[in-house]
Amino acid sequence: MKISIIKIGGNVIDFPEKLDEFLALFAKFPGHKILIHGGGVLASRFGESMGVMPEMVDGRRITDKDTLDIVTMVYAGLINKNIVAKLQALKVNAIGMTGADGNLIRSIKRPVKGIDYGFVGDIQEINTELVDTLLSAGLQPVVNAITHDKKGQLLNTNADSIASALATSLAKDHHVNLYFCFNKAGVLIDEKNENSIIPLINEDIYAELRKENVIHSGMIPKLDNAFEALKKGVHHVWIGKAENLLLAAKGKKSGTIIERQRYDLY
Amino acid sequence: MKISIIKIGGNVIDFPEKLDEFLALFAKFPGHKILIHGGGVLASRFGESMGVMPEMVDGRRITDKDTLDIVTMVYAGLINKNIVAKLQALKVNAIGMTGADGNLIRSIKRPVKGIDYGFVGDIQEINTELVDTLLSAGLQPVVNAITHDKKGQLLNTNADSIASALATSLAKDHHVNLYFCFNKAGVLIDEKNENSIIPLINEDIYAELRKENVIHSGMIPKLDNAFEALKKGVHHVWIGKAENLLLAAKGKKSGTIIERQRYDLY
Repeated sequence: MKISIIKIGGNVIDFPEKLDEFLALFAKFPGHKILIHGGGVLASRFGESMGVMPEMVDGRRITDKDTLDIVTMVYAGLINKNIVAKLQALKVNAIGMTGADGNLIRSIKRPVKGIDYGFVGDIQEINTELVDTLLSAGLQPVVNAITHDKKGQLLNTNADSIASALATSLAKDHHVNLYFCFNKAGVLIDEKNENSIIPLINEDIYAELRKENVIHSGMIPKLDNAFEALKKGVHHVWIGKAENLLLAAKGKKSGTIIERQRYDLY
Repeated sequence: MKISIIKIGGNVIDFPEKLDEFLALFAKFPGHKILIHGGGVLASRFGESMGVMPEMVDGRRITDKDTLDIVTMVYAGLINKNIVAKLQALKVNAIGMTGADGNLIRSIKRPVKGIDYGFVGDIQEINTELVDTLLSAGLQPVVNAITHDKKGQLLNTNADSIASALATSLAKDHHVNLYFCFNKAGVLIDEKNENSIIPLINEDIYAELRKENVIHSGMIPKLDNAFEALKKGVHHVWIGKAENLLLAAKGKKSGTIIERQRYDLY
């Protein structure tokens, strides 16, 4: 079957109006779809109100026991269940899930190498059979960033990595497209100009853009991950603004499409 | 199919060791099973740490917007996902759910009649088709006390009512038994004597016990609810201590069995 995996982040989740707008678009998005979300600033805000301050090492958040409890409450509870209820009202048969539910995503606690990230999970295995069962029953999974180690421990996991891992695992048997909703309109030639979107990037174009230093710093790991997903069989990866998602679904110009080899998309 | 619906409350959830012991028993419980849980004192504790004090009217908790957010985080997030992760480690293919997930339980906000209970939901409809799909796929639902109105609103719902509603709805097509884990060993002749368990109550015995005032006050609504479930087709209702659940499953003497008409159980 054809499956779309759509990831949203803090720039959608943190703004109730934007989230509602996005969910209305998501409801209209055709075919089987899986929504992946993290938590944005809500987890930090709740943590602070409970006296749990975010602990950072080298600019990275450490997930201690209290922080894990908070992200579990905020991601898997507050955000996930409100998204599910809103999608149900929009006639999407959403089912909210962590990686622990039905053993959807098994991860391992990141080994300590210099920095101890605490209860952070690196993905090991996706239960694609479960996804098949749910999609075939007309359910649309809404997956948050909490996974488990199958030994009873919940783990905090990067939502981008969950989206990529789900996409590549499902790509073995299905036609999978991956959509990253981003705070910019796509991959831009000029970061300050939202009209300078590069509509299509393939391996040749990517090599060229890197050579000319048009793509640099933070975009490099994002695009490397996208090409990694394509190599593992994902059909295409889209990066763009949440509000342009439907245009993307209809194959209309919006955001950046990343593909291994160019083909006539537009 | 044969389905067991097992409800646990604060006297299990609030004590990590007791919860672990219970989950080990639940894992060994034979056949298809659905676990129902509320939240115990954890929600109040988290609320207070965030400055949200429980608001009570006539001894009943009012669910305002902040309280709803907290119970959603604690029931659907913290408690539900930790139970699921622990059951997964015990090789139970648990899937955690609110009533919003897959539209499992639709409720309506309780109408204001004198007291405004706030975001409290009274159950309207159970999605038994979804339960069939999940159980047939080898999944064991773990259901918490959050439901939704199918219009985008989450609602706080009594976990005992969820257990009864699931049991009676599923009883139309299945052989359903309902187990209430309680803070006493069963229905007792002498409240202070845990050895005075009444092993079996049917309609005749119940009438007699009420006439003699052996069963009074708080036990009456519990037993009325149990007989209501039996009238709607539930096979039997068990009331007893969580640690005796496996004995109950094996048909051994433990707790109180409630049935419409006596039959030779032991």
